[in-house]
Amino acid sequence: MTLMTDLYPSRGETPVALQARLDPVFYGDPATPSGPLSRGEISQYETNGFLFFESFLSPDEVALYAEELERLRHDPSIRKREDVFLEPRDGGVRSIFNVHRNAPLFQQLAQDGRILDRVRQILHGPVYIHQSRINYKPGFTGKEFYWHSDFETWHAEDGMPRMRALSCSIALTENNECNGSLMIIPGSHRLFVPCRGQTPENHYKVSLKKQEYGVPDPDSLNRLVERGGIFSAKGPPGSMVLFECNAMHGSNGNISPWARSNIFFVYNSAENSLAAPFCGLDPRPEFIASRDFTPLAFHATSSR
Amino acid sequence: MTLMTDLYPSRGETPVALQARLDPVFYGDPATPSGPLSRGEISQYETNGFLFFESFLSPDEVALYAEELERLRHDPSIRKREDVFLEPRDGGVRSIFNVHRNAPLFQQLAQDGRILDRVRQILHGPVYIHQSRINYKPGFTGKEFYWHSDFETWHAEDGMPRMRALSCSIALTENNECNGSLMIIPGSHRLFVPCRGQTPENHYKVSLKKQEYGVPDPDSLNRLVERGGIFSAKGPPGSMVLFECNAMHGSNGNISPWARSNIFFVYNSAENSLAAPFCGLDPRPEFIASRDFTPLAFHATSSR
Repeated sequence: MTLMTDLYPSRGETPVALQARLDPVFYGDPATPSGPLSRGEISQYETNGFLFFESFLSPDEVALYAEELERLRHDPSIRKREDVFLEPRDGGVRSIFNVHRNAPLFQQLAQDGRILDRVRQILHGPVYIHQSRINYKPGFTGKEFYWHSDFETWHAEDGMPRMRALSCSIALTENNECNGSLMIIPGSHRLFVPCRGQTPENHYKVSLKKQEYGVPDPDSLNRLVERGGIFSAKGPPGSMVLFECNAMHGSNGNISPWARSNIFFVYNSAENSLAAPFCGLDPRPEFIASRDFTPLAFHATSSR
Repeated sequence: MTLMTDLYPSRGETPVALQARLDPVFYGDPATPSGPLSRGEISQYETNGFLFFESFLSPDEVALYAEELERLRHDPSIRKREDVFLEPRDGGVRSIFNVHRNAPLFQQLAQDGRILDRVRQILHGPVYIHQSRINYKPGFTGKEFYWHSDFETWHAEDGMPRMRALSCSIALTENNECNGSLMIIPGSHRLFVPCRGQTPENHYKVSLKKQEYGVPDPDSLNRLVERGGIFSAKGPPGSMVLFECNAMHGSNGNISPWARSNIFFVYNSAENSLAAPFCGLDPRPEFIASRDFTPLAFHATSSR
């Protein structure tokens, strides 16, 4: 690990002002698209910081992955694994990390040409998986996930130097106005919101349940929402969002009976591999922030 | 107070099955409407248990009431009143009860002919205000309000004998898919869901913050939602919902920056005035469950 200049300081004791993004959003040449994304989609991604693809996976594919998630969730051997997170309230399996390594079906999907072509077009060049997980959010008691920029955490706690990564979230259940779907603030990826407060050690053990560090202040959030509003990623099962690593996002709780499940892959450019965490602590575990920077190869190029 | 047969038993130690409603929903003669509601609206109310009126109040009226709410919220003399509820987190004023008595502008609105004609048409005959309040729900930290039937509480804790009451909720802010708007389960008013658990004394002091008794079980909720789905009362400021006292409703939390404010009046038929609470405890305070059953007179008949 090399020591690098911190271009996006955060987690200090004193408040720091909003900072303009120093990195490109789209890394390719927008004028000559070299992948499945059209010039219009590229322009949307640059402006809003995300792209929404309704019903990206077919109903058959959704059924396959949803079944595999259920199988894994109820596999008794999985509960003790370090990379599996349980619901404090009822002990149910909430998140399984590392599925791009440990679960062959999801490993294939992470390398599926339909996704990978788009990701490589945006990030330009070879990419690897920084983090992967499948999530099950129950109905009735689904908790909120407060606003955050993933990059803020990945930079401070994982040592990701620049903004050259994106998340792919694929819904396995319907997301509607009642079950707390993902909300993104359009345009928020263009500003970096430094967050107050020294990060405690082993923060990841609580931060995935309740975020207390890396929390943006209300004034900055107001400013972002006044400029961009809020996009709610509603849609049928199989819908996919690709969103920029610094896009501000979150989700409300869910008292509806409708559970939410999704697949989550984070792609990072192989040219943006991790340095030492900028918050000064030890790196988070491998299953949360991979340090295997080997670029992904295509698994299969399904047509669509 | 007279002792009466409990037609809707709840709050016992043992589970009780869902029970069919024993009371009418619309108390007038649906064939010959004698008020502003059309036959179509009456039929909708009977089927769904609520009616939604988009932009019922004009923007000028909304501004007037919103200003008055702000004035009252920031009146230092109001904070110590028993009928004012504060936000535990920041001490801000969250709800002001009894506004149909103590706040002239809201007193007038509670008797406004546009509302009262509709209410009297549904409940048939003289009505009085069982409870009134104005609510301010902040953005960022707005808490969820779990599913409940108001009638279940009003019956058990206030001694309301029959289902012959309704709530009028008027939004003073926009309700959208991101800020936790009121959700109602259409058709749920036709079944009574008994809730488990003996009610503790002075339950109202905590129940308005976090409900632990009068909470319906997940199986019943699943059954209601499978039949009726969920209606989300989204709309511009000034929109009004009239909903039946036994309609199952709730709202998700709100991490969006958009606060929500509303005016809330509960109308009960003067022929359905309160008996002793069916849970066996003392009645709740007057500002939560009025025992002044004097019927409302019209204040003004604004045309619309």
